[in-house]
Amino acid sequence: MTTVYLNGHYLPKADAKLSVDDRGFVFGDGIYEVVRVIEGRVFAWDAHAARMADGLEGLRISRAGAESALLRGVCERLVAENGLGTGEATVYLQVTRGAAPRVHHFPATGTPTTVFASASAFKPNMAMRTDGAKGITLADIRWSRCDLKTVNLLGAVLARQAAQEAGAYEAIFHRDGMVTEGAATNAFMVVGGVLRTFPLSHYILPGITRAEIVELARGLGIPLEERPVALRDLHAVDELFVCGTTTDVQAIVELDGRRIGSGTPGPVTVRLREALAKRLYGGS
Amino acid sequence: MTTVYLNGHYLPKADAKLSVDDRGFVFGDGIYEVVRVIEGRVFAWDAHAARMADGLEGLRISRAGAESALLRGVCERLVAENGLGTGEATVYLQVTRGAAPRVHHFPATGTPTTVFASASAFKPNMAMRTDGAKGITLADIRWSRCDLKTVNLLGAVLARQAAQEAGAYEAIFHRDGMVTEGAATNAFMVVGGVLRTFPLSHYILPGITRAEIVELARGLGIPLEERPVALRDLHAVDELFVCGTTTDVQAIVELDGRRIGSGTPGPVTVRLREALAKRLYGGS
Repeated sequence: MTTVYLNGHYLPKADAKLSVDDRGFVFGDGIYEVVRVIEGRVFAWDAHAARMADGLEGLRISRAGAESALLRGVCERLVAENGLGTGEATVYLQVTRGAAPRVHHFPATGTPTTVFASASAFKPNMAMRTDGAKGITLADIRWSRCDLKTVNLLGAVLARQAAQEAGAYEAIFHRDGMVTEGAATNAFMVVGGVLRTFPLSHYILPGITRAEIVELARGLGIPLEERPVALRDLHAVDELFVCGTTTDVQAIVELDGRRIGSGTPGPVTVRLREALAKRLYGGS
Repeated sequence: MTTVYLNGHYLPKADAKLSVDDRGFVFGDGIYEVVRVIEGRVFAWDAHAARMADGLEGLRISRAGAESALLRGVCERLVAENGLGTGEATVYLQVTRGAAPRVHHFPATGTPTTVFASASAFKPNMAMRTDGAKGITLADIRWSRCDLKTVNLLGAVLARQAAQEAGAYEAIFHRDGMVTEGAATNAFMVVGGVLRTFPLSHYILPGITRAEIVELARGLGIPLEERPVALRDLHAVDELFVCGTTTDVQAIVELDGRRIGSGTPGPVTVRLREALAKRLYGGS
């Protein structure tokens, strides 16, 4: 039986129930995080906690009940209670503005936030990591605060569904003619030996794995520019990969049915994937 | 004690609980309607039912459990059971893609949708209708499928909060330099004797009250163009009003602290407000 966390309580998932007035349900008025847990250790907790704090501040949701130290403890306890202390796991965390009579503007001060967390076993798709995956391109129809990791996720839902139906892993968005990011990942491209990615802005999520990769690339001496790639140039890039907490570094080797580069994960992608794996799993 | 409807059951609101896996909560993956009930009669049901069907089709959510005839019956029963058969009421209806393990793409076929409804007493703000209200203008940062009445409502939530903090009733959005609609209403302007409103498109909600007004204007011989007004011209329009199921025709007489027209509801606004009231309440 799965144990989850809801508003201060650890309880069987079947008993964890939400009010129909929860603003998460009615407005999508909340933020979330997915953290990676390896052998019981939460990876990059501080970065996730900082982003969560930024999101709560961005939406002006009270941090009461969602303090970083508390939530880290919640993650660790859920991992332990669910027998996920060995191997890999993820913890999903969500904080909403709470339950209140339905009006668009914020509810009365002091309305308790809803804080939910649950842990699941996780197994990276190693074959796909090694072989590369397929992608499609799609117009980015999402709102213009994609920097906030909110649960207003319909744009991503529809895009991932479109990818799925095309037999692809990810949909790569473009806006104003520029490649922004994946539906649930950040995107990197190698163009003329330079690693390129969309700059931090309102149009992309400040991905934790994205930040890791920027740091790793610098450490490895891989030239990097946080500068958009035009959609019209995307199919001709040397390498394309997407990244994220559960995606790691995932080569996209076929896009809209056309081969990217040699059709196999390129050398920069492989170096970064291996460097990230070292950070995740340790070892030489 | 309030009785609500959830997935086929009528039950006390306190007992109506949602799964933490509901895609409404996790992704905002659902649509909603608010219908107006006057003396026990649902106003414009067919139009609401048609828009709901369009929304479910647009998001490819199964209509099982959300058939129009069923939901109309749900509205009527909730109104009766909650003693709202006299005076005014609203019924809130929401349908989500149901509860399923969290992956962005659609869950397995046959996953039951979540269907929720609740009725509340409603009292139009007659003083504000008569005197006019304040508005503010805001950049429209929402996604580009505003024609779907989804619960991905953070853009509207933040805009309504901004309006509230400015002492205003509504936030009027602009996109690409054009006035689109209100955060929770459609917007109309009178410019040189012509009633203007943004055309039906992906950028605005196909409002039920908007459609009523278009029809009423034609019947009254008021010239109408479904053609955007530029933001730069907005403060100089002769009249400005917003409309919606719970807003009726609401004059905006002060925008961003500047008077619109004479600073009182203009003649076209008043005529349309009265014509709509006749449709709602009957009488001469």
